Amino acid sequence: MNRRDVIKLTGAAAWGLVPSAAASALQAHEGTAAPAERHSRTVEQHSGTVERWGIFEAAFNGPASGNPFVDAQLSAHFRHQNRVLRVSGFYDGRGVYRIRFMPDQPGEWSYTTESNVGALNNLSGTFQCSAASQGNHGPVEVNGGRHFSYADGTPFFPFGTTCYAWVHQTEALQQQTLKTLAAAPFTKIRMCVFPKSYEYNQNEPPLYPFPRKDGQNDLSTFNVDFFQHFERRIGDLNRLGIQADLILFHPYDRWGYASMPADANDRYLRYVVARFSAYRNVWWSLANEYDFIKSKTSADWDRFARIVQDEDAAHHLRSIHHGRVMYDYSRQWVTHASLQTDDFSKTKQWFMDWNKPIIFDECKYEGNIPSRWGNLSGEEMTRRFWLAVINGCYATHGETYLDPNDVLWWSKGGELHGTSPERIAFLRRIAEQSKGFGWTAVDNASYLSATSGGDAILLYYFDYHQLAEYEFKLPEGSSYKAELIDPWKMTITPVEGLHQAKAKLKLPGRPYQAVRFVKAE
Amino acid sequence: MNRRDVIKLTGAAAWGLVPSAAASALQAHEGTAAPAERHSRTVEQHSGTVERWGIFEAAFNGPASGNPFVDAQLSAHFRHQNRVLRVSGFYDGRGVYRIRFMPDQPGEWSYTTESNVGALNNLSGTFQCSAASQGNHGPVEVNGGRHFSYADGTPFFPFGTTCYAWVHQTEALQQQTLKTLAAAPFTKIRMCVFPKSYEYNQNEPPLYPFPRKDGQNDLSTFNVDFFQHFERRIGDLNRLGIQADLILFHPYDRWGYASMPADANDRYLRYVVARFSAYRNVWWSLANEYDFIKSKTSADWDRFARIVQDEDAAHHLRSIHHGRVMYDYSRQWVTHASLQTDDFSKTKQWFMDWNKPIIFDECKYEGNIPSRWGNLSGEEMTRRFWLAVINGCYATHGETYLDPNDVLWWSKGGELHGTSPERIAFLRRIAEQSKGFGWTAVDNASYLSATSGGDAILLYYFDYHQLAEYEFKLPEGSSYKAELIDPWKMTITPVEGLHQAKAKLKLPGRPYQAVRFVKAE
Repeated sequence: MNRRDVIKLTGAAAWGLVPSAAASALQAHEGTAAPAERHSRTVEQHSGTVERWGIFEAAFNGPASGNPFVDAQLSAHFRHQNRVLRVSGFYDGRGVYRIRFMPDQPGEWSYTTESNVGALNNLSGTFQCSAASQGNHGPVEVNGGRHFSYADGTPFFPFGTTCYAWVHQTEALQQQTLKTLAAAPFTKIRMCVFPKSYEYNQNEPPLYPFPRKDGQNDLSTFNVDFFQHFERRIGDLNRLGIQADLILFHPYDRWGYASMPADANDRYLRYVVARFSAYRNVWWSLANEYDFIKSKTSADWDRFARIVQDEDAAHHLRSIHHGRVMYDYSRQWVTHASLQTDDFSKTKQWFMDWNKPIIFDECKYEGNIPSRWGNLSGEEMTRRFWLAVINGCYATHGETYLDPNDVLWWSKGGELHGTSPERIAFLRRIAEQSKGFGWTAVDNASYLSATSGGDAILLYYFDYHQLAEYEFKLPEGSSYKAELIDPWKMTITPVEGLHQAKAKLKLPGRPYQAVRFVKAE
Repeated sequence: MNRRDVIKLTGAAAWGLVPSAAASALQAHEGTAAPAERHSRTVEQHSGTVERWGIFEAAFNGPASGNPFVDAQLSAHFRHQNRVLRVSGFYDGRGVYRIRFMPDQPGEWSYTTESNVGALNNLSGTFQCSAASQGNHGPVEVNGGRHFSYADGTPFFPFGTTCYAWVHQTEALQQQTLKTLAAAPFTKIRMCVFPKSYEYNQNEPPLYPFPRKDGQNDLSTFNVDFFQHFERRIGDLNRLGIQADLILFHPYDRWGYASMPADANDRYLRYVVARFSAYRNVWWSLANEYDFIKSKTSADWDRFARIVQDEDAAHHLRSIHHGRVMYDYSRQWVTHASLQTDDFSKTKQWFMDWNKPIIFDECKYEGNIPSRWGNLSGEEMTRRFWLAVINGCYATHGETYLDPNDVLWWSKGGELHGTSPERIAFLRRIAEQSKGFGWTAVDNASYLSATSGGDAILLYYFDYHQLAEYEFKLPEGSSYKAELIDPWKMTITPVEGLHQAKAKLKLPGRPYQAVRFVKAE
């Protein structure tokens, strides 16, 4: 193998997925964010080590003249034993080209580049992939059809939140958002790559994705500062154990990003995937409210899906979020449904139609603004999370309380003011105490209920019903411990004794209560 | 005109519709309940006077031998100016035959009987119909397609409750129910003619509709004591200003009333209509949960509708209540929809389909029993009444709190324990402050709202939304007074000033609030 121009290999071994990571982790900006580039051309085999699901990065010097973003093509094939994976590289400005790759198996990997630029062609190298470090469970994938796990098999429960434009605020505000997230229960965040222009969000972003002058975008190139900054934030989220559900297009725009020509859209997608797909906590959301982006056709969305699918060697989760016109989530490229609705009663039908995990990514937000999607009480937001879980699905939080400085969490991040997050944390603990990867709704029951691990755990949620007593039908032949759960007071009260078959329990006679039965060992 | 055998004419002039009648009215059993029958045969014209929408009753002696319930046919034609109305009579036992009629126009009325019994044939007489007394507004009818009024044009708002089997309890409990109703906000009550057998309702009724011996019904006759008692209760309700929504068939039965042969069903319907239809506060509900009565076919229900329609000269309101299979309420004989559902969001479609008033007669009950239809909180029951009204519809209350003696209001009556009735009273006052016959839902609004009297009053209900502020779009060119309404605290708080066009108001930031705008004179 020829080895030339290898100037940098970075293994982001320090990336630990710590679901309840301390805020102090934010201080250390590690990973690919600020690689120390070696500009000497060298041919020796690099001896670096990258942990499994970490980021391997190779950086090369190349031509800075012309328009490398358009003119230079760079890719590499990565090999491990008999597997070969193709990855696109990208131009990072100032004559530096990079290729990033997330190795998913320990052992020796090698790579060889291809490029239409002689200096970048046929470069090769090897590196060792070590075992994942503690807390690194790999990227999230679909498990068992309707749930998620990390690549190492650890169950993953998407308890998401929404901060569409948090990376487009001041650095101080971004740091505050990260600090808030570190203490919050959320394991996924919906966020836009492009800046957002919408009510309560009229400030200019500090950085633009394309060079911008006199209100005109140069769509033939990229502003690498924007993308370097953005991927720093992806890394920050990863250290907090939070999946970055990246929204690639959205309608709320005043700069022209929602209506770029096809070649610019496609180049943007390839660039984003080349830069971000080695980050194991990335999810792809083709759009927020795809049907509200009037400039794009179904053929456009098909092409975008194709590009993301083809270019992402890591096969991150893919979906598209709808406004009024529900997407056909049965389509092959979609890994899970990303819904805007609060019709939890339809989940049974949707599971039959799609047989994929369902995330109610927008079921309205806790807040008090005039818009009808932004003024749920904390009680109602909490209720909706319970309705999602008890139906075998997942939900995403958002918060829209009026703020004198227009810092609303759902758009800009900052601080949380609502009463639902701690209840969502409480529910997340209960949901994660499943036996297996999640919960399966029970069909045709009088009250909403779900099971986990077969009949190992039975969870009831009584919603608006305020029963004073109920006779539960438990599976024959087993004994269960029972607990009364108050989702609002966040209490779990054991009921005395063991319960079998027809188990009549006194209930609090208040609405929005839950009961859990756990099979006695 | 031949006049023979006229032995009794009763004008129930004392019947005053007093919507908030005092409980003391219950002491006076007036009307047809205990007529003093004159058994002398006479031919002179009776000079009695019946008030408009009161009850004219003629009683005749006739044969008591054989089976008069089946063998004797009796009817009369009533004439007023150029109108002729046919009314069936009925056998009331002990050789007494009666014909009842509700005159709907003041002035002189005459009648002539027809019978296959010589002694009952061709009897005739006249009577004067006087103006309705204070508080007597006549029977309720549909007004303007989607609302109701009394026959004199006074708007009527059905704020109903449910006491299915209250007339089949002890006299003491019935009197307690009437006392409770006198203080309650309800203007309509759903009640079964037949006794009911169901959970919390397993006691035997004091009276059976048919003679019963050794567990066998004699369906060829009627137990007149049962019907005399039942109509006393209809009269009691009328004095309280409450419409008796009489359920003619229901599935919850252990005596055989839900599965009688066709001839018995038909005879029962004719008998009930002949006895009860002169009571101006009667509504006909062919069934509770018609689709749960498996013994009856669609053809049966068609025939029952035909009989009730043909036999009822007063044309009382008619409907049929469904369980799981919604009835086609567009059918000609149906005057209004009587729904079992809580899907208030479908009212717009249903109004288009049916163009009739919609009553959510069963949208679940306030209570705490295990059954999922019987454990709403008072808050949720109140909310459902608001959702009905703001959608231009009506709702019916029920209450099912566990009771050591199984006296649950929804079935047996007794006392109310819940928190919704006083909030329903509060809403009823607001609804009745309409300009016109009711409220019309506003289409395509961000929040649920309704108008009354064109744009004279605008009513908003924010349901689970907890807005801190909102900009209302008021009709151009008019000024409005604004009020904040708290449906739970039952407060109406005027907002200072007059409001025009885009009126931004501060709102409480709590869910389940309402706002009313009243056009300034």
